[in-house]
Amino acid sequence: MSRTEIASLGEFGLIKRLTDKFPITNSSTKKAVGDDAAVLDYGEKQILITTDLLLEGIHFDLVYVPLKHLGYKAAVVNFSDIYAMNGTPKQITVSLGVSKRFSVEDLEAIYEGIRLACQGYGVDLVGGDTSASLTGLTISISCIGEADRDKIVYRNGAKPNDLICVTGDLGSAYMGLQLLEREKIAFGGHDDVQPDFEGKDYILQRQLRPEARRDIIVGLSEKGIVPTAMMDISDGLSSELMHICTQSNVGCRVYEDKIPISYEAAVMAEELNINIVTAALNGGEDYELLFTVDLNDYDKILEMDGVGIVGHITPPQSGLYLTGREGEEIALKAQGWNSLE
Amino acid sequence: MSRTEIASLGEFGLIKRLTDKFPITNSSTKKAVGDDAAVLDYGEKQILITTDLLLEGIHFDLVYVPLKHLGYKAAVVNFSDIYAMNGTPKQITVSLGVSKRFSVEDLEAIYEGIRLACQGYGVDLVGGDTSASLTGLTISISCIGEADRDKIVYRNGAKPNDLICVTGDLGSAYMGLQLLEREKIAFGGHDDVQPDFEGKDYILQRQLRPEARRDIIVGLSEKGIVPTAMMDISDGLSSELMHICTQSNVGCRVYEDKIPISYEAAVMAEELNINIVTAALNGGEDYELLFTVDLNDYDKILEMDGVGIVGHITPPQSGLYLTGREGEEIALKAQGWNSLE
Repeated sequence: MSRTEIASLGEFGLIKRLTDKFPITNSSTKKAVGDDAAVLDYGEKQILITTDLLLEGIHFDLVYVPLKHLGYKAAVVNFSDIYAMNGTPKQITVSLGVSKRFSVEDLEAIYEGIRLACQGYGVDLVGGDTSASLTGLTISISCIGEADRDKIVYRNGAKPNDLICVTGDLGSAYMGLQLLEREKIAFGGHDDVQPDFEGKDYILQRQLRPEARRDIIVGLSEKGIVPTAMMDISDGLSSELMHICTQSNVGCRVYEDKIPISYEAAVMAEELNINIVTAALNGGEDYELLFTVDLNDYDKILEMDGVGIVGHITPPQSGLYLTGREGEEIALKAQGWNSLE
Repeated sequence: MSRTEIASLGEFGLIKRLTDKFPITNSSTKKAVGDDAAVLDYGEKQILITTDLLLEGIHFDLVYVPLKHLGYKAAVVNFSDIYAMNGTPKQITVSLGVSKRFSVEDLEAIYEGIRLACQGYGVDLVGGDTSASLTGLTISISCIGEADRDKIVYRNGAKPNDLICVTGDLGSAYMGLQLLEREKIAFGGHDDVQPDFEGKDYILQRQLRPEARRDIIVGLSEKGIVPTAMMDISDGLSSELMHICTQSNVGCRVYEDKIPISYEAAVMAEELNINIVTAALNGGEDYELLFTVDLNDYDKILEMDGVGIVGHITPPQSGLYLTGREGEEIALKAQGWNSLE
């Protein structure tokens, strides 16, 4: 593979080379890359904005994360935040800080991942900033989305007796990360060695190339369900439940045997001697949706694919509890994935 | 001054502590910090979005940049991009990556600067992300603004015979940087020594605490002037003129003796044996506005404070030239402040 030095293109040559292949697909995108700011046109809708900063060594390890996957994931985690508001992502801006060890081809790989994510989710790239970095790779993405005025879902609307719903399964991304870390140690960090990941595709995909649950947002809309509260699960179910309960001033009760766990994650957990329920409750980066719905929506929820009911909302004085398989009661703690510690 | 470890607050405690003092002042801000995304309501207006990534050691040097000033500047440079579209900044998101050498009080100083900037320009903080960093300080800010549909000014509307206008003066921020660099070398990088900056206030303020030209945008609106092209001068006049000429498919002619230079910058340039015109043409970070107006607006421009006419737009085949004091013709080159080199 050829290696083009970034400095050989200059900042604007580089931006052009990286962004030329991004089409404009949303009518709300009036002006994208190439001016001081992007111009967006939203007549009737509310606008959503979210942002995420990814730093090498903290949020990703380039020893085992392919750059294309990194770009894909960096975009998708932002889309996930917009879906978590019951909105639709429409535009992103991408800022990169890159050290001299990266070539133009490396940046193209990151942008190719971002482009695939944008294509898959119907999102337009509208701006950004690329600069040198003295150290590692920095990726900062902001995402703009739209939502119907009366259908935005916050974290603070849950009320006693609401059902607590979770999409997909939890803990798989965390088990994928544990596998990658194990292989990294085993291979001494040589990035030219291909470890054997046979049969581990699912948990690796969950860690390296997660998807955002657009299908669930579409499904909820088709069923006429507006959740009472919703957020995406990026720091673990326990932590996110505590956010919803705190902001809504309610308690909750969830059931261990209802927590959705994949077969592959359970096998990996056994192999690594990790408690899979702990992984599901506290492992990060699943990017599934956690939401609460009125009890009247129970039948509609049962008809939806990929949604499980894991418990219910209680009055605030009842506290936040997990009921174990033997009926034992365990107070929920947020030992989630805190990137500040 | 007390030192609180960041980890002692946790991510959400930290965000609350940093953002609690930010009021909401814009009616378009429906939901700010505290959910997956912010919610903005723009009925009739177009929305603008811009983003900037600032990395320690590349964009700023903490040896001589106070954290509060850094926060102020990081916000203001984004506002400047929105004004450069003839818009008004309304919301920002702030993401920080911080290494262990920073305390909560350090982050509060950065946010205090951001808060002062937001207060001064009427902008609301609506979100962000704070995470650990293995190395230096990273600040990523995105800014959302609004503009009247028919008054947005791009870079591509300049046409032959338009007047080329520049606000304020150029080169002062660059001379301020040169002074700071000289003092840093002289004092061996000890950050507890106070160098003597007597009489240098203006160029230091231009470098450390720049302002965005909201007054000019208000003035243009009051005069009923809509520029044909506009951008802010962050990489030097030469580089920005080339952007406007390339995107508008025109040439330009500017006059050396019309380029606005401050007395303080000229004195400093002489002291440091730097050509002040080169500094004005290629020095970065002035955050003044460069714009072109129809010749019919000539009289109105003359009535405006803080705006100088530095030349005019020509047909594309005439090229991009500076006419020197002796009448000599010098082809413009963008040797601007390229943070990728």
